[in-house]
Amino acid sequence: MSKAKLVPGPDTVSDSWILRPDPSDPRLTVKVSGVDERGQPVETSVVVERPLTIYLNRQEIVTAMTIGDHPEYLALGFLLNQNMLRTDDEVTEIDTDDDLGVVVVRTKRATNYEKKLKKKVQTSGCAQGTVFGDLMDVIENAQLPKSELRTSWLYSLTHQINTTPSLYLGAGAIHGSVLCERDRPLVYMEDVGRHNAVDKIAGWMFKNKVDAGDKIFYTTGRLTSEMVIKTVRMGVPILVSRSGFTAWGVELAKKAGLTLIGRARGKRFVALSGEDRIVYDQDLSYVEEESSKNRRKAAVHDE
Amino acid sequence: MSKAKLVPGPDTVSDSWILRPDPSDPRLTVKVSGVDERGQPVETSVVVERPLTIYLNRQEIVTAMTIGDHPEYLALGFLLNQNMLRTDDEVTEIDTDDDLGVVVVRTKRATNYEKKLKKKVQTSGCAQGTVFGDLMDVIENAQLPKSELRTSWLYSLTHQINTTPSLYLGAGAIHGSVLCERDRPLVYMEDVGRHNAVDKIAGWMFKNKVDAGDKIFYTTGRLTSEMVIKTVRMGVPILVSRSGFTAWGVELAKKAGLTLIGRARGKRFVALSGEDRIVYDQDLSYVEEESSKNRRKAAVHDE
Repeated sequence: MSKAKLVPGPDTVSDSWILRPDPSDPRLTVKVSGVDERGQPVETSVVVERPLTIYLNRQEIVTAMTIGDHPEYLALGFLLNQNMLRTDDEVTEIDTDDDLGVVVVRTKRATNYEKKLKKKVQTSGCAQGTVFGDLMDVIENAQLPKSELRTSWLYSLTHQINTTPSLYLGAGAIHGSVLCERDRPLVYMEDVGRHNAVDKIAGWMFKNKVDAGDKIFYTTGRLTSEMVIKTVRMGVPILVSRSGFTAWGVELAKKAGLTLIGRARGKRFVALSGEDRIVYDQDLSYVEEESSKNRRKAAVHDE
Repeated sequence: MSKAKLVPGPDTVSDSWILRPDPSDPRLTVKVSGVDERGQPVETSVVVERPLTIYLNRQEIVTAMTIGDHPEYLALGFLLNQNMLRTDDEVTEIDTDDDLGVVVVRTKRATNYEKKLKKKVQTSGCAQGTVFGDLMDVIENAQLPKSELRTSWLYSLTHQINTTPSLYLGAGAIHGSVLCERDRPLVYMEDVGRHNAVDKIAGWMFKNKVDAGDKIFYTTGRLTSEMVIKTVRMGVPILVSRSGFTAWGVELAKKAGLTLIGRARGKRFVALSGEDRIVYDQDLSYVEEESSKNRRKAAVHDE
């Protein structure tokens, strides 16, 4: 029965992370003054969103609103998740111009998505549209590996993620995605657009040729069809969220054999697909419920 | 000092609503079985999302994922908020085919948005893209009326909204938007896509020729640029959310003279724009903090 994992020391945390939010980055938030419920002046921090136009070779693909901390990873991940960049594509160059808000991804393979860009699907996840055909292929051809999720890992991960300094804890109104391995959170990306956070992780994995089969993906967002498809496309077999499910998200997860865990708060969670990967090794009497502080914070996670 | 409004009787509520969620509608949720944190089987309700393809006259505009309860209002509102339908346009016919998931809006004016559909902007609100030029026009030409928001209304509205039966309270993972007048919530729309909920309200207002100048708009979602633009486009001078702000959302609200109130929970709120419309008539000693039950529920409001 694992217990120690639930209260990781600072070492555990700092050792664990490869990449995590930098709430102190002055480009990511601004101070704004206003008034509170008593009419008293207040100064508060709000998250910055800026347009980033993504090009694939000579073609303008999309302009995304992002906090702008990792344009390269966002561009790569977006193109991968839109099926415009293949996992075996050779990226020859990535040019970023922060002032212009432009990132250009160049590939050895010639690309042209004129047609694809015409037909859009707005999902409830609201990513820039993706053609349905593509989506279904990803789900039907899914071959997610047999892996395991120990409940002791799950509780340790959520504890570490909830207590790691982030823009979310500081300014709120932002989404987070975390790539994890066993009980170790590795990469934590935040963004104003939930899908940007996911795409930045996909981009990081592509750039660093990271194996997805033994990973666990955590998102603050809802478990929608779009989120399930992106996780399956990345090849990660386990998707966890503190938030809820949509019916189509659950249906696609079952088709793809993805382990889908939602409403993960404190002791509680619900698994609606791929339950066979779960190993119940945690003695629940050692798991704390979330503090009301965390609950309130969590409520800021809207969009 | 108003107090009574804070605990509206069932009459107040039932008298107030013109349109509100029907959580008992069998088309909107499905029962799914899974396991809980103890490995015990559980059955839970999840929200349904289905594709709805919106046509304007002979042109296919977008396929949106929606719970599908008000396709007409969603189509009208989406087209209005994309600036493809003008407020003075004469809608000659709206055909809906639930089985095909298609809604066709026909207008007297001939329309063609081929060009516009090519250039997309993905906002952090993630609505199907809108051209920046349009957005800025809306903000720069904004003429929002002088109106007032009494804090007694604000507390009464949030109380009524939080205690009204909804898919959100039942299944979670859904967003809500509420059109209000003084201390009366009038129309409450929910959807898997936050922007669908807003668009359905815009569509309802258009169809019923509702004056926006004396209204208050409440959203469960974050106060992003996209949300501010839609509210201003609708002509509603006051936007309230229990969630947080993005910097660009605040900037646009100030430009447009929109009253922007966020983090509205229990007693608390922060106004970052248009504070002059706020009238502090509520004695705060009579306002309850949110129950931890509401806080937990609120935490389900992700995406």
